[in-house]
Amino acid sequence: MALGEFELIKQFFTRPNHRADVCLGVGDDCALLRPTEGECVAMTVDTLVEGVHFLAGTDPEGLGHKSLAVSLSDLASMGARPAWVSLALTLPRSDETWLAAFAKGLLALAERHGVELVGGDTTRGPLSITVQAMGFVREKDALRRSAARVGDGIYLTGDLGLAGLGLEIVLGKTRLRAPEAVAKLERPEPRVQAGMALAGLANACIDVSDGLAADLGHMLEGGGVGATLDWAALPLPSAIRRHIAAGGDEWMPLRAGDDYELCFTVAAARENELAARMAEFDCSCVRIGRIDEQPGLRMKKDRRVLDIDVRGFQHFHPA
Amino acid sequence: MALGEFELIKQFFTRPNHRADVCLGVGDDCALLRPTEGECVAMTVDTLVEGVHFLAGTDPEGLGHKSLAVSLSDLASMGARPAWVSLALTLPRSDETWLAAFAKGLLALAERHGVELVGGDTTRGPLSITVQAMGFVREKDALRRSAARVGDGIYLTGDLGLAGLGLEIVLGKTRLRAPEAVAKLERPEPRVQAGMALAGLANACIDVSDGLAADLGHMLEGGGVGATLDWAALPLPSAIRRHIAAGGDEWMPLRAGDDYELCFTVAAARENELAARMAEFDCSCVRIGRIDEQPGLRMKKDRRVLDIDVRGFQHFHPA
Repeated sequence: MALGEFELIKQFFTRPNHRADVCLGVGDDCALLRPTEGECVAMTVDTLVEGVHFLAGTDPEGLGHKSLAVSLSDLASMGARPAWVSLALTLPRSDETWLAAFAKGLLALAERHGVELVGGDTTRGPLSITVQAMGFVREKDALRRSAARVGDGIYLTGDLGLAGLGLEIVLGKTRLRAPEAVAKLERPEPRVQAGMALAGLANACIDVSDGLAADLGHMLEGGGVGATLDWAALPLPSAIRRHIAAGGDEWMPLRAGDDYELCFTVAAARENELAARMAEFDCSCVRIGRIDEQPGLRMKKDRRVLDIDVRGFQHFHPA
Repeated sequence: MALGEFELIKQFFTRPNHRADVCLGVGDDCALLRPTEGECVAMTVDTLVEGVHFLAGTDPEGLGHKSLAVSLSDLASMGARPAWVSLALTLPRSDETWLAAFAKGLLALAERHGVELVGGDTTRGPLSITVQAMGFVREKDALRRSAARVGDGIYLTGDLGLAGLGLEIVLGKTRLRAPEAVAKLERPEPRVQAGMALAGLANACIDVSDGLAADLGHMLEGGGVGATLDWAALPLPSAIRRHIAAGGDEWMPLRAGDDYELCFTVAAARENELAARMAEFDCSCVRIGRIDEQPGLRMKKDRRVLDIDVRGFQHFHPA
């Protein structure tokens, strides 16, 4: 039995409200939300389109997870505590099995981070998912991408390149077996705790969605600074090292997107504090380079210093 | 010359920030927004899909206007003062002429209502527009659709049915000439001032997007009440009367959506206040019926009382 639009929303996306700051959730013309006094609302919106951001036939539960994960990652990169999310879902047809799995993936991640789905829209059309997420951060603690300062250490959470390798595996471009790479591509874990821990400590922060080179490039451009990275310090996991050893492109980890790790800078004088804060939860974090005055991105590798092209994946490439 | 994704956003959608409550607008991982203390954030999201909500080849400037208008209308129907908006735009290709016109239409309406575009996402794919709008209203003044009480007068702003007639004209289903109907379809004016004036005065409120019967039906269902409308009181403009006189479906005005007028209820004891408040600005408003205890929607017409089917347009129709 096909369900009407309103029944769909009710059945799959309405859950008991757990947050006291949600006065009114899904079901009216608007949600009514009570912001935390003294804090800013951090707001981000991301769209995933079938055939562009994910392959047709992608597991809907993973897709539900990822649709929310990319937005929570943006909140994390501002140092914000996530709170509310809205979902605009465009579907070619009413498919209850698909919807149940999608909702399960999205709501499971939401629940883990105490996030409430407070509104949305369901429309008919080519499969596309737009999630808007909101959270809180004190204005002075927010991590702006333009705030990198000369001398800052550049840090990266987690590891680098696994999602890119996962995409090559899914597309059949490599025979390497690395389930952790596919998992990273399909179910990235947004660095919510790390972002909150960095608020007020890090200077600049960005999440690695378009590839480290491209995203770090935005940060450097925004701050009017440059950076030199150290190849030996890059947190390349064993699957990536095996991939490179087997003839894979060694630059892929810098170019590939979708890792959703946080790349951030910390003033040299505060680098000691960082280790203590990050030790409070399970999130590795290594220094991969330093901000310098000279614009552009450079890489120390095999006793040479190479210039890196920071242009990464963009949906509309410049001609 | 095709532009890169980031240049697109910058060129067409970045404007000088006029609102003091926008700490950080388009360009970072998140916008940073400072809510008004003591008020709730009202939040709504709406998607328009080409071929479903608008025809291929629709004038992009009108589409920009309408994409924002539907969300401002949702804020109005909560009694909220609009403030911030985000735009998720999915485009088949980078078309600067289209984008310039779309941005012009959207930003002109935004400016008239003091609304700031604070974030967004631009992706490649089938044409689709998701706008999320946020505004402010005191929790106790918010107009919930479930708040209709037995005895309330039911009111409608503006007129009824013009957008539905406009659609018939655009689709070539009628030869009637009525440019005001096409204008209403393509450039609806959200009842922002009226909504704000109704905050704390009206009981329930809803905007007429899916058709008066369907939307009023949601209101009645939400409040556990019924209603009787008076056909003679419906604000049918002359084009609609001509359309009906020429053999057009007389029930179309109740079934057709997209009028974006406000339908609201006011306690009998406060109906006097209403006229005074609405007289402060240019928005007509008539009483079209009354809330009663008996569930369902009825229409007094030609000395009879007819039962009305409240199911209107839904994207996924029940089987």
